[in-house]
Amino acid sequence: MQQPCSAVVIGVGPEQGLGATLAKCFSSKGLHVFIAGRSEDKLLHVVKTIRQQGGSATLVVADATVEHDIAHLFETIALQGYPLEIAAYNVDSNIRSPLLETENETFARLWQQNCLGGFLFGKEAVSLMLERGKGTLFFTGATASLRAKPPFTAFASAKAGLRALAQGMAREFSPRGIHVVHTILDGVIDGERARKQFPEFVAQKGPEGLMQLDAIADTYWAMHQQHRSAWTHELDLRPFKESF
Amino acid sequence: MQQPCSAVVIGVGPEQGLGATLAKCFSSKGLHVFIAGRSEDKLLHVVKTIRQQGGSATLVVADATVEHDIAHLFETIALQGYPLEIAAYNVDSNIRSPLLETENETFARLWQQNCLGGFLFGKEAVSLMLERGKGTLFFTGATASLRAKPPFTAFASAKAGLRALAQGMAREFSPRGIHVVHTILDGVIDGERARKQFPEFVAQKGPEGLMQLDAIADTYWAMHQQHRSAWTHELDLRPFKESF
Amino acid sequence: MQQPCSAVVIGVGPEQGLGATLAKCFSSKGLHVFIAGRSEDKLLHVVKTIRQQGGSATLVVADATVEHDIAHLFETIALQGYPLEIAAYNVDSNIRSPLLETENETFARLWQQNCLGGFLFGKEAVSLMLERGKGTLFFTGATASLRAKPPFTAFASAKAGLRALAQGMAREFSPRGIHVVHTILDGVIDGERARKQFPEFVAQKGPEGLMQLDAIADTYWAMHQQHRSAWTHELDLRPFKESF
Amino acid sequence: MQQPCSAVVIGVGPEQGLGATLAKCFSSKGLHVFIAGRSEDKLLHVVKTIRQQGGSATLVVADATVEHDIAHLFETIALQGYPLEIAAYNVDSNIRSPLLETENETFARLWQQNCLGGFLFGKEAVSLMLERGKGTLFFTGATASLRAKPPFTAFASAKAGLRALAQGMAREFSPRGIHVVHTILDGVIDGERARKQFPEFVAQKGPEGLMQLDAIADTYWAMHQQHRSAWTHELDLRPFKESF
Repeated sequence: MQQPCSAVVIGVGPEQGLGATLAKCFSSKGLHVFIAGRSEDKLLHVVKTIRQQGGSATLVVADATVEHDIAHLFETIALQGYPLEIAAYNVDSNIRSPLLETENETFARLWQQNCLGGFLFGKEAVSLMLERGKGTLFFTGATASLRAKPPFTAFASAKAGLRALAQGMAREFSPRGIHVVHTILDGVIDGERARKQFPEFVAQKGPEGLMQLDAIADTYWAMHQQHRSAWTHELDLRPFKESF
Repeated sequence: MQQPCSAVVIGVGPEQGLGATLAKCFSSKGLHVFIAGRSEDKLLHVVKTIRQQGGSATLVVADATVEHDIAHLFETIALQGYPLEIAAYNVDSNIRSPLLETENETFARLWQQNCLGGFLFGKEAVSLMLERGKGTLFFTGATASLRAKPPFTAFASAKAGLRALAQGMAREFSPRGIHVVHTILDGVIDGERARKQFPEFVAQKGPEGLMQLDAIADTYWAMHQQHRSAWTHELDLRPFKESF
Repeated sequence: MQQPCSAVVIGVGPEQGLGATLAKCFSSKGLHVFIAGRSEDKLLHVVKTIRQQGGSATLVVADATVEHDIAHLFETIALQGYPLEIAAYNVDSNIRSPLLETENETFARLWQQNCLGGFLFGKEAVSLMLERGKGTLFFTGATASLRAKPPFTAFASAKAGLRALAQGMAREFSPRGIHVVHTILDGVIDGERARKQFPEFVAQKGPEGLMQLDAIADTYWAMHQQHRSAWTHELDLRPFKESF
Repeated sequence: MQQPCSAVVIGVGPEQGLGATLAKCFSSKGLHVFIAGRSEDKLLHVVKTIRQQGGSATLVVADATVEHDIAHLFETIALQGYPLEIAAYNVDSNIRSPLLETENETFARLWQQNCLGGFLFGKEAVSLMLERGKGTLFFTGATASLRAKPPFTAFASAKAGLRALAQGMAREFSPRGIHVVHTILDGVIDGERARKQFPEFVAQKGPEGLMQLDAIADTYWAMHQQHRSAWTHELDLRPFKESF
């Protein structure tokens, strides 16, 4: 019997969030999923759902910005022996902050979460994938990856750094079989975070004015399915009603 | 019984070409296809193949740069009554030409084929699609859509114009339900044209160094399948070995 | 005695316009100026002003979109024998037009004025400049050169085409000594056109919210003055109050 | 008698370097200059030259990545009381490093030097300039600011972050009178660093194939001179022979 392959998603939080949705999507396609995030409670909920749906998952508590945590995550993956097909860096944090009110710690923290973590994670993922000469590495970007608008300059700086990282990795590792995909999510995700933080905005936009979680995951999966003679490195995603 | 829906592809030439492949792909998904191009002979071959594979197709001889031809094409589509799901503008012509040797007619011709035709076709397609408030409109771009490199400046100017057209149309019509997708094909397609024109280049690249026709069509179809809460407007496609 | 050098500006209209201002600026620096445009009356006013200020100018009635006119303009320049230092393509036309209401003739006309004319003019200018292996060629762009926004999609398509033309020409001719500069004017010029067409907008913006003609010309001159070891190909210009 | 105005340049190293050249340029225009860098020896040489040329300068030893150093630098500027006209962030470090060989410390260090320092410096500079509602803030970028190419991915990630910072600051502070300029130096500077590190490359390129220090400084000065109705936020600079 053939060993099933696996996927790893970091940045898994609430069940109604993109990290959890990607994990459930990859599981539904037959992959064992490693789900990583800072909150064990939240990870437990997602693992439970995946198992109820007949999938298999391993939970790893990890902070994407901590080198040791990322190293441990990939040791766990390597030990379990499922060949790694997909790695998704889905950590995202944003803070509304006029520049002069932005603390140095805030600027650094946003970079750690939105850029440094991608480097730590990407390096480990690629190292593992190169053994088989294949695999898909996702980096989740945002509108701010392309345009810096106050009061989100610090966030934009970090996301631009992540985008460049993804681009450089694509140029370096595509010829060696690794598909590096940078997605630009140009809209608000219809998930728990938005519903809690901006309930009025969510109500006003309506369900089709927000990005549906499964809709995003479908496109991630389509990217993973691409034949390597025609790989996409970067694509945008936004609600049809969104102005851009 | 429900009326089948339809797709139209313009720029259909040899069977081993992107236009024909998109038509066959859309047909295989159950759509009636209208195939348009300048050579009746080539269109006949494609229609025959589609019918042999159990699909249905209508052939319309049309030059994408001729207003009357485009009008006639869409009258034919409207008359036959299959709701139009997909319209793909796949006309592409390129000429290697140092700028000072580029005739004014050549500059104009490249614009007509790579940009004006997209305007004529896009306008008609959107008009028809807006009746149902849905549909996907594809414009096929190239590396040159983003970067003008001699000796392909004239081609790049036209492709940049097409890209802007696609972008403006996405901004104008997405909120009304029309999905406008601009693809950037950043590599050489493994089709009849390349095999005839650059046989040595094709041999040197090998099958995975060239874009496989079906691989491209798969991504077009995936874009058409996207839920409208998470539409992609632009994406690149290139062989994994391609430097960029 | 050394022969003075010259500059040519096409797209010269009202005295309070960018074309006329560039011509007056170049004249004030000691260049003989060839001023070209469609209205002899307007050109006469500008010539008169230049002469009153102690400069010298030659007027050539020319439509930038007509091959023969451009050929004639450069024959005139070549005949007069002043070495050509600067050529500025400053033709600009814009029409507010939702895409479905855009006539095919309008789409073509905007391209002729904003892109084809640049090709005709640029080709002649470069041919002449290459004889001396030096010269500066300006193309005046706009916000729409980078972003296509309805209801200005047709204009944006043409301006994107011009930008690609400029980029390709820079890549082809910079190594041969020709400085090709593409300016992105991202704001409204405080000239006769705006004052006539949008008087309320002009009043609301105030003088510093609109681009001052001399301010723009100063930057064109600074670009021309650049040492060829550090040439700028593209730069944006906008009022400090302008959001972007 | 009117108090002279001042400029501050951080990233001042060897006399034949961009930081020192900018300082000397600003001094030659009548500004008192604050020069900051990590090596007191190098700063002393530059100060001496400036004084020999009749200018006045204050030396501040500072590491751009250390919050306290930047705070101290701007306290010094504020204390001396010369109104601050120009602030230039010219710190640049680059390391050739394939991604899998890039240490986490290296990735972080490149970000600190090429991005975090820009934030610390920019925040202080803007705070001071806003008191008068005017001033020019320069950030020196590189080819990598726009494109990430291995083996320079880590550098590109940091430079992309700096570019976004500059863009967000321009959007936030331009309307309040601060001119934020991001320069993209797309070529090798003909300075001490290149002459020591790549002598053969320098010899092969020849003097006009490398960016001359004074030529770059001229353009910085031209940007500072721009009228605020027509400000440039971003421009590229490269040798005429450079392919791009």
